[in-house]
Amino acid sequence: MSGTTKIAPMLAVSDGARAIDFYKAAFGAIENWRLDAGGSVIAGLSVGPAELFLAEASPPHGTHSPPSVGGTTVRIELFVDDPKAALARAVAAGATERNPVTEHSHITTDGSPFRMLQGMVIDPFGHYWLIGKFLD
Amino acid sequence: MSGTTKIAPMLAVSDGARAIDFYKAAFGAIENWRLDAGGSVIAGLSVGPAELFLAEASPPHGTHSPPSVGGTTVRIELFVDDPKAALARAVAAGATERNPVTEHSHITTDGSPFRMLQGMVIDPFGHYWLIGKFLD
Repeated sequence: MSGTTKIAPMLAVSDGARAIDFYKAAFGAIENWRLDAGGSVIAGLSVGPAELFLAEASPPHGTHSPPSVGGTTVRIELFVDDPKAALARAVAAGATERNPVTEHSHITTDGSPFRMLQGMVIDPFGHYWLIGKFLD
Repeated sequence: MSGTTKIAPMLAVSDGARAIDFYKAAFGAIENWRLDAGGSVIAGLSVGPAELFLAEASPPHGTHSPPSVGGTTVRIELFVDDPKAALARAVAAGATERNPVTEHSHITTDGSPFRMLQGMVIDPFGHYWLIGKFLD
């Protein structure tokens, strides 16, 4: 894979237009493009240099909104300089705090220590956002 | 959000160790770190400059493997220079092709045309990978 490889999540949501508005308010997202695919919204967003996509859930195609399946199959990691401020902004926009931002210390299986700050919110569309940063 | 903001998916999988091996073979992923969290594997991987995380599914915490919910709540967009080659490599490693790589043309809601190459595979852990690139 070359240096241009990118990985980005595409969230299944119940209401694309409302979700775009929420991600703008909660995370400062910018709308790069929006498609109306037969009444179903698909969009490309950016949060700073990071990309994020969303499309309305389509159970016949195997894409489900998190509330419809009682959780999520993929959590979203959001790394920012100030996790507490980012989490507070998301909550102010309507997300629910599941875990406050606290420091977590781990030892990897090869014996290396690492520390991170991390908290978690669940957004109004049921997606789980791990908001944090690595320390050291 | 500053220029250091990053967004990355954290996939819920049924078997973390086997999933790490698969993502290495399928996408050329590198293992950055691995934790054994009480018998449950959590890992940080990279595909070129892109980051990807995985953790074993934990239904009491709302994280479900895709087969357990009949699909996914978040698809993964993988942008690469050569989508056909990347899709073929993933299939050779054990993914299932759902859609071949073809060209898709869209008109955004503000009237701008855009074109992309995109195909999709479902990996052995049930995750949906949209493999493509934007054209022009």
